[in-house]
Amino acid sequence: MSQKIEYAIQDRYPEDFSWCYGCGRLNKDGHQFRTGWDGDQTATYYQPESAHTAIPGFVYGGIIASLIDCHGTGSASLALHRKNGFEPEDTELPPRFVTASLAVKYVKPTPEQKQLKAVGTIEEIHPKKFKVIVEVFAEGELCATGEVVAVVMPASFGAK
Amino acid sequence: MSQKIEYAIQDRYPEDFSWCYGCGRLNKDGHQFRTGWDGDQTATYYQPESAHTAIPGFVYGGIIASLIDCHGTGSASLALHRKNGFEPEDTELPPRFVTASLAVKYVKPTPEQKQLKAVGTIEEIHPKKFKVIVEVFAEGELCATGEVVAVVMPASFGAK
Repeated sequence: MSQKIEYAIQDRYPEDFSWCYGCGRLNKDGHQFRTGWDGDQTATYYQPESAHTAIPGFVYGGIIASLIDCHGTGSASLALHRKNGFEPEDTELPPRFVTASLAVKYVKPTPEQKQLKAVGTIEEIHPKKFKVIVEVFAEGELCATGEVVAVVMPASFGAK
Repeated sequence: MSQKIEYAIQDRYPEDFSWCYGCGRLNKDGHQFRTGWDGDQTATYYQPESAHTAIPGFVYGGIIASLIDCHGTGSASLALHRKNGFEPEDTELPPRFVTASLAVKYVKPTPEQKQLKAVGTIEEIHPKKFKVIVEVFAEGELCATGEVVAVVMPASFGAK
């Protein structure tokens, strides 16, 4: 059964920062990943498209890496927002993060035609820097693990 | 000035394994990355599309990760193929690799509208396992570095 995030942090990103090919709600050509709380962890669900193949039957690793990337920055945003006293249900603008580094281990080939779930475990390593450990499951089967280091978007990016 | 790989290893992949969203020449919806020799190093050129944005003005990190991923497997294929006595100019089928792990460091925001060049330096760490150190430049400016560990595709994938 397909699952969905009800309150996604990306729904609260300012319009100018909602064009990300991975998670921008305004980028109609992109993946539109949506990340929310799942208890003390975070979750992003995604159904890859048929074109997103590696070899027939399996999902392309770059899509997995993209999912982990935006799940990481979204999770960091959720965490700092909660620390500041807000939830994605609130209309308050959350802090935006960028990816400093991304690492992915492909545990096993990711089967196509299954909904993927990225699960994040968040660790604050500095008030403006978070590490997110990510596990990617295809209907319960662990297919990839990852680690994202995300930092608050520098003012030079025009962050609001 | 836009540059292009003349003899790409992906042009020699068997048809069944040419549907990769990153580098499959038969996947018309994909990026169609093409990887070839550049002296003792390898190169892949890519012009991101306008939709591939992170925030306005900069390229999405998942596209950079995808470029590094396929550049890594393509470079490993080139290296083992050369070790076996073949070049991509030959019609011999090259060995196919899959990604075991991928790591990316985002050195600086990657500007949009510039052709990217991924440069690979290859190290054999086992007869069936190669490490590829990757640097991604936007018109000469280093924007990201990466490391791919690529392994010969297991027979269970149906490799020929």
